[in-house]
Amino acid sequence: MTAEPSSDSLSLPLDLADFRPGSVWLAGAGPGDPGLLTLLALQGLRQADVIVHDALVGERIMALATPSARLEFAGKRGGKPSAHQDDITNRLIELAREGHRVLRLKGGDPFVFGRGGEEAQALAERGIPFRIIPGITAGLAGPAYAGIPATHRTANQAVILATGHSCAGGPDWKALAATGAPLILYMAWKGLPSIAAALMEGGRSADTPVGVVTDATTERQRVLVTSLGACVADLEASGMEPPAIIVIGEVVRLRPVLNWLPKELPHG
Amino acid sequence: MTAEPSSDSLSLPLDLADFRPGSVWLAGAGPGDPGLLTLLALQGLRQADVIVHDALVGERIMALATPSARLEFAGKRGGKPSAHQDDITNRLIELAREGHRVLRLKGGDPFVFGRGGEEAQALAERGIPFRIIPGITAGLAGPAYAGIPATHRTANQAVILATGHSCAGGPDWKALAATGAPLILYMAWKGLPSIAAALMEGGRSADTPVGVVTDATTERQRVLVTSLGACVADLEASGMEPPAIIVIGEVVRLRPVLNWLPKELPHG
Repeated sequence: MTAEPSSDSLSLPLDLADFRPGSVWLAGAGPGDPGLLTLLALQGLRQADVIVHDALVGERIMALATPSARLEFAGKRGGKPSAHQDDITNRLIELAREGHRVLRLKGGDPFVFGRGGEEAQALAERGIPFRIIPGITAGLAGPAYAGIPATHRTANQAVILATGHSCAGGPDWKALAATGAPLILYMAWKGLPSIAAALMEGGRSADTPVGVVTDATTERQRVLVTSLGACVADLEASGMEPPAIIVIGEVVRLRPVLNWLPKELPHG
Repeated sequence: MTAEPSSDSLSLPLDLADFRPGSVWLAGAGPGDPGLLTLLALQGLRQADVIVHDALVGERIMALATPSARLEFAGKRGGKPSAHQDDITNRLIELAREGHRVLRLKGGDPFVFGRGGEEAQALAERGIPFRIIPGITAGLAGPAYAGIPATHRTANQAVILATGHSCAGGPDWKALAATGAPLILYMAWKGLPSIAAALMEGGRSADTPVGVVTDATTERQRVLVTSLGACVADLEASGMEPPAIIVIGEVVRLRPVLNWLPKELPHG
């Protein structure tokens, strides 16, 4: 008998968690590079009966799903008609109650500006078994692929992750500015003019270096290095498109030395 | 001819990066659960000629290394004699120059309080090709496995990652307190009395919930929920041991609802 490697099987040298019928895995797909998927997320893709996925999960990752899986798109895109959060959570509950292995796959990490907590709350309240599978968040990996460490011993002992997209007025930018810690912003493209102004009012110098990363960790990644005073104009002139990760702080100055990607391309 | 699955081969349904002889991969091993390894870190483990690893990389992960790999321990442990940073970077350079595929494997993420930036700088300055492979940081995954999201839409629009272990006086705890954002502390066990005091002086209430996670994401994970005013005494009485991830903020209140792990154990 010939045992040929099957493209449907997951051949991994360890026992992972049991993906039980009737349960939901709330998993992060990471920032884009399929190499940054976790083993558990890959297992979820290969074993799920239904995959409810976001717009931010790329094609190369969705291609890893087992061919028998049903794919349901539940993306939210800025400015376009999109699924409501309640509809998504209700759908997850319905699918689990039908006895499916349900993979809820989100870009990045479900618990870092991913609304995974809301979905988990809804599942917990209905008694649906679920598992949280953290993913690598784009706010850390995007800069890393651009040669910008989130922390550097001589530069900072804290780093702030913040969202620029908020229903509730947003974080206190002046207080965040006063910490001196670098900021890593998610979904801040539209709000950048007012965020940058508030940070400068809060004491950040207009010379503070800013790095903007789009299509983080993918073969289309682009990086713009600018300053807090110039970032709005430079970003507009760049031809880049959202979504982006925006890093504001001295750590951006390390990029010319640590910019490893061009030396190693093509990647993935 | 019979093709049997070899335990040495990495069977993954996609092309990953090329691990070239004479190069160094600076990779994060994640927080502990082998299921949270990235595909690239696993590839590194299976293809490396030499693996220079930290104390924080667990046995179940090291067991994934190819049997032919040479393992070199370069850990730093609080209070014990440990490798100097210069010795580690010099060793990486030496091994790469000898033509090896060198995996530098660190717990968590090399660019989040991992000193990966320093090692990358040294490699870049000597012209050694290197690649950064982000890992899942314990500061986000430990709380996630404890049912504590780093962000929750109704609770916070920013989150601060900070280290309590510092040669340079530490971050400005009062300024961090004033932001109102939850804090996630690394290596803060010893410094907790002074850190908690500074946060309360900075305006954080003694009632602020605190979650402490040890052995994050492993089968030995323990979680203590306490408050800012009581955390020092409660931690001392707990019998828990460092290292720990310490979360300070309202997001800790979600744990009773989102605490999924006991329902799904055993994991991994």
